[in-house]
Amino acid sequence: MQKRYLLTPGPTQVPPEVLLRMSQPMVHHRSPEFSRLFAEVQAGLQRLFQTDQDVLILAASGTGAMEAAVFNTCSAGESVLVVNGGKFGQRWLEICRAAGLAAVEIRVEWGQAVAVETVARALEQHPEVRAVLVQASETSTTVLHPVQALARLTRHTDRLLIVDAITALGATAIPMDGWGIDILVTGSQKALMLPPGLAFVALSPKAWQRATAASLPRFYFDLRRERQAQHKHTTAYTPAVSLIAGLHEVLRLLQDEGLPQVYARHAHLARATRAAAQALGLRLLAPEHPSPAATGVWLPPEVDGGQLLNAMRTHMGVDIAGGQDQLSGKIVRISHIGYAGPFDVMTAISALEMALVAFGCDIELGRGVRAAQEVLLTGWPELKPVSGTGSAGTGR
Amino acid sequence: MQKRYLLTPGPTQVPPEVLLRMSQPMVHHRSPEFSRLFAEVQAGLQRLFQTDQDVLILAASGTGAMEAAVFNTCSAGESVLVVNGGKFGQRWLEICRAAGLAAVEIRVEWGQAVAVETVARALEQHPEVRAVLVQASETSTTVLHPVQALARLTRHTDRLLIVDAITALGATAIPMDGWGIDILVTGSQKALMLPPGLAFVALSPKAWQRATAASLPRFYFDLRRERQAQHKHTTAYTPAVSLIAGLHEVLRLLQDEGLPQVYARHAHLARATRAAAQALGLRLLAPEHPSPAATGVWLPPEVDGGQLLNAMRTHMGVDIAGGQDQLSGKIVRISHIGYAGPFDVMTAISALEMALVAFGCDIELGRGVRAAQEVLLTGWPELKPVSGTGSAGTGR
Repeated sequence: MQKRYLLTPGPTQVPPEVLLRMSQPMVHHRSPEFSRLFAEVQAGLQRLFQTDQDVLILAASGTGAMEAAVFNTCSAGESVLVVNGGKFGQRWLEICRAAGLAAVEIRVEWGQAVAVETVARALEQHPEVRAVLVQASETSTTVLHPVQALARLTRHTDRLLIVDAITALGATAIPMDGWGIDILVTGSQKALMLPPGLAFVALSPKAWQRATAASLPRFYFDLRRERQAQHKHTTAYTPAVSLIAGLHEVLRLLQDEGLPQVYARHAHLARATRAAAQALGLRLLAPEHPSPAATGVWLPPEVDGGQLLNAMRTHMGVDIAGGQDQLSGKIVRISHIGYAGPFDVMTAISALEMALVAFGCDIELGRGVRAAQEVLLTGWPELKPVSGTGSAGTGR
Repeated sequence: MQKRYLLTPGPTQVPPEVLLRMSQPMVHHRSPEFSRLFAEVQAGLQRLFQTDQDVLILAASGTGAMEAAVFNTCSAGESVLVVNGGKFGQRWLEICRAAGLAAVEIRVEWGQAVAVETVARALEQHPEVRAVLVQASETSTTVLHPVQALARLTRHTDRLLIVDAITALGATAIPMDGWGIDILVTGSQKALMLPPGLAFVALSPKAWQRATAASLPRFYFDLRRERQAQHKHTTAYTPAVSLIAGLHEVLRLLQDEGLPQVYARHAHLARATRAAAQALGLRLLAPEHPSPAATGVWLPPEVDGGQLLNAMRTHMGVDIAGGQDQLSGKIVRISHIGYAGPFDVMTAISALEMALVAFGCDIELGRGVRAAQEVLLTGWPELKPVSGTGSAGTGR
């Protein structure tokens, strides 16, 4: 018998309340009962996206919503600017190329955030660019890109800012309307604490306007048709009913905790994880602009990351993520997104310490844990004896 | 949103497989389907008890089976010897007194195991004693009493040895027939990883013989009637159907892991927990005869244990147990029984460290974790790089 610890940046852990909610008997998606549920979910998503626009729900993984964003607002041959600083920046590029767009690529070193000036300069050099595509949190490098600053570049122009917030939304505040983001995309299996299978996309009025003229072919991901259906509190095609029921519970949980507290919790766990890695003498992959979703950590060069993760999974039951593409085998990514708490950090760090020691690394057991504990303690200011009633210091 | 960590010695955590099994639709308890399930559960319990005798299943908490043990084998006015080294030894005494028995009490200091010689001497001094009652693991003090040695004193006499193994069975080997135990009692919510609600009792041939003559009044807990019913693979009164279905899954999980491995796992986690406490400079409550179910640890005298546990529960979501009766407020009991693994120890120890620091104690964060990690690592001999493929030391 082995307990499993899923500490990867998606799928993430699903709270028991949500598992229970998803286990309820199926309802029909054209019933008043489903529409009532759907309407509440729509309102909750608008609060999460901080938008007055429709947040459309798709039965798809996040990539489906990324495709929808491009195919609904672009036309063949148009120019776009893609920030490519990781595997998911690369995915924007691939989608744009599949769509026959002319992509101006800004390559960013993996582990770095894009420099706003670089984007500004590229936009000046390429007046033909009609949209900027970027990740809010680049999952592969655990970097947070400066979305708010990028929005300032596009907001009062006729360019669109298209943001993949798949590992950002729900982990950090991304006020779509407030910042002036034109398309905001996310998925279910990250901060939304659901199994994979749902994707979400919201469009600004400017993006909807573009959708009317956009000529790329689309059917399943035709957002105009979806919007029409979702205004009637159902979907154009069969929705993933149980996931939407689970989402209803997720939105209740997030509302109960309070979104500012949800974001603070993610930041706090990320700080603790970074402190642990640094105390162990491990370099952070994204020291300057770290994501609150996951923390990338360089492994000592003598360690084969694939073997390490495999050993942790097999023997400890602990799943943390490795590196992708050129970072494969060289880093680990410790997730703290979604249904995560302080003892997930303790599990990840203590497991990593033990695995590194077993792999012959010269690190001190407990040292990373201690550094994380010091950060975590700052999150419990009320964890102390009730004064004057016989606890530490009263000499009872 | 706060994750909850149940690290108490009962109820213990329930594995997801078991929760799912218990969530299946109800079946009728007089159906062939239920009888098939029941028969498999009966066979699994015999393997767990290491007995050829019937293991009877009662819809009750463990105390119900304790009462059944006494009321089915004793008659008013008879003498029994009770080992009283904690709250549950005290419970044996209370049951015997409620039954109108004359109890010879052997008081044992809380935290100590009973000395076999003391029992031997008492039995010599009290030839009228017809049964010896003892805990295998005294949950309140985290002590393991020497059941095998006590069985040697009673085995070839006409005295009964009645053993409460509620926090022992499934955590450590207690071969009922092999040791010559006459009555072995346990409950569902400890090593059996189920919710509370089931109790189990098995009687040796000598105990069944006594049951014929025993004159104490009983109805619900009349084990003769239960045995008759359970020979037909059902119960005398309505059984707790879903718990028995869950038990079917539990027995499968234990069989899959292998009972020797289950016992080794408990011993390993207990060792890690003790090492952690000692590294923190905290005294063990039961240093000499510790139970593999839970580890009692003395708190620094300036700490109010009630406040500490309340703070850990409220702010951290971590439930460890406190002391009972005279130990109330003075100790904590960290459980590692049932569905427990290495990262439960990490959670318990790291939480306790942080709470003690927050309560003003002079302990070093991470020090207990590290000591536990050192023990835990010995349990993963295969956690290492595959030789010659580019891990530590190969200079890749």
